[in-house]
Order: sequence, then C-alpha cells, then structure tokens
Amino acid sequence: MSAAIHLAGPDDLPKLLALVTAFHGEEGISQSDDQRMGGIEPLVQGIPHGAAYLLGPKRAPMGYIIVCFSWSVEFGGLDATIDEIYLRPPVRGRGIATEALISIAKALRDAGVVALHLEVDTRNEAAQRLYTRAGFRLRDRYQMMTRVL
Amino acid sequence: MSAAIHLAGPDDLPKLLALVTAFHGEEGISQSDDQRMGGIEPLVQGIPHGAAYLLGPKRAPMGYIIVCFSWSVEFGGLDATIDEIYLRPPVRGRGIATEALISIAKALRDAGVVALHLEVDTRNEAAQRLYTRAGFRLRDRYQMMTRVL
Repeated sequence: MSAAIHLAGPDDLPKLLALVTAFHGEEGISQSDDQRMGGIEPLVQGIPHGAAYLLGPKRAPMGYIIVCFSWSVEFGGLDATIDEIYLRPPVRGRGIATEALISIAKALRDAGVVALHLEVDTRNEAAQRLYTRAGFRLRDRYQMMTRVL
Repeated sequence: MSAAIHLAGPDDLPKLLALVTAFHGEEGISQSDDQRMGGIEPLVQGIPHGAAYLLGPKRAPMGYIIVCFSWSVEFGGLDATIDEIYLRPPVRGRGIATEALISIAKALRDAGVVALHLEVDTRNEAAQRLYTRAGFRLRDRYQMMTRVL
C-alpha cells in the first residue's frame, strides 16, 4: 500500500505539530510546546536545512517524515538525513513507511542529493528491517558521537 | 598547544585541496580530482550547508576541519556535524585537534547551533578518546544507516 506524500507548508503547521507531538510522546522526547514549535516551524517556512512531508490525505495526514539536508565531502555533494519518521499506530505494518522512504529517496536523487542517512535504535529490529527493505545499509564500523552545545 | 583557525574562502582552495587529498589518501577514500573539487569548492563559496576551516598559519595550514550544518527537530534547531578532520602527521599528538574542536564548538554555540555531531570508527580508540576530551559522548544506542542515491 502506498500513500500520498506532500511537502508541508505554513498552512499544514497545526496538523504537523499534532503528529510530531504524538511521535515525541511515544518516544519519550520531552520538549515544551515552544521548543517543539521552534523545531518544526522553520521547516515549513522554507529554510534550506530541511523539509517536512505529510503522508496520506492532505486534510487528515496519518504520518510525517522530516528530511534534513547537509553536505558530505566524501559523498561529494548535498546529502540528506531522515530526522524523524512517524505513522499513526492504526496504519502501521502496511508498507506505507517503506513506500514513502523509497519515493522520497527517488525524489531526492532526482534533485541531485547524493546520499540519504538515518539513525536507527540498535535494539529495534523491526525498524532495521523496514529501513533495509527501503535500501538502507548499516554503517556498522562507525558510531555517532554528539556534544550538546 | 592551540592553533589559529580561519574560515577557508575561495583563495584558500588550492591549500585546502592539498590537505583533503592527503586525508583521503590516508583513509583510502577514492575520488577523481573533479569529484573531490566538487565536494569542497561549494564550501568555500559560502553555501548554507557547510564551511571549511584551516588550522594553523594561513599561508601554510597544517590541517582542516569541515563543519556541515543540518537541522534537528529533537534538538530543536540548527545542528552541525564534523564531516572531516585532518592534521598533517608531524603535528599530531599535541592537542591541536582537541583545542580546535572545543573552539569551533564554542563559536557554533554562540551562533545558535544546538548540537554538534561526528561519526567515529568503532575500532579507533585514540579518536574516541580525543573526541571525548572535546566533550563528545557516544550515542551507543543508535547506529547510522545509509542509502547511496
């Protein structure tokens, strides 16, 4: 099963915020409403660093994908990362996320993006299988390190 | 020991290219000259996705750091990644890279960047110690997956 995908604009902000809030609740990501809005509003305003896509009917989206853009010298150009991906629980397990990822990967490639990355929870085998079906491969020689600024 | 850091502009491109070529040789990253130039020239031309910093004297830099910018909904704003870091072999082991990372982290924080990331080879304990000294912590519950487009 596939689902329509559309780029979220300013008018989609309330629906996007509701979905992001649901995802963060499920993941235990604690943010104030202002912080959460500060993280998503620039994405619907057209900043060059990322974009939000809504999955499903425009008036009643059932999920979202945040794609963020960066640069890689090794890959030789613009690369992108799936920053967040979420589907409402009742529509999971139907291949919608896999199809959406494949479709977004194709659109990014056509736009000249050279590689697409994501971070997966090492204990979440279902997610790893989903991403593998969508063409992603584990970079298992490498590990991310982060410094919060 | 610390070293001067300056943002590379178009005039610094030949010196930056020589350092990047040396790093890629050491890492076994195989690229044509055109690919390599395509990966670094936009960075000195001011694209919003990244910047190159040269370490040491402007006329005879001894290393470089590529910082790329992206966006994180979870961290709530602009984040950055150390895409590449390199010092010429004779000047290693003096704390130059640690100092440069701390200094760049401070400058990024002052510019409103919320988090700084990097990828480390899991078998390279010396690099992990260096990054830990510079304030980075392993995200050991997560693993990167990549799809080349």
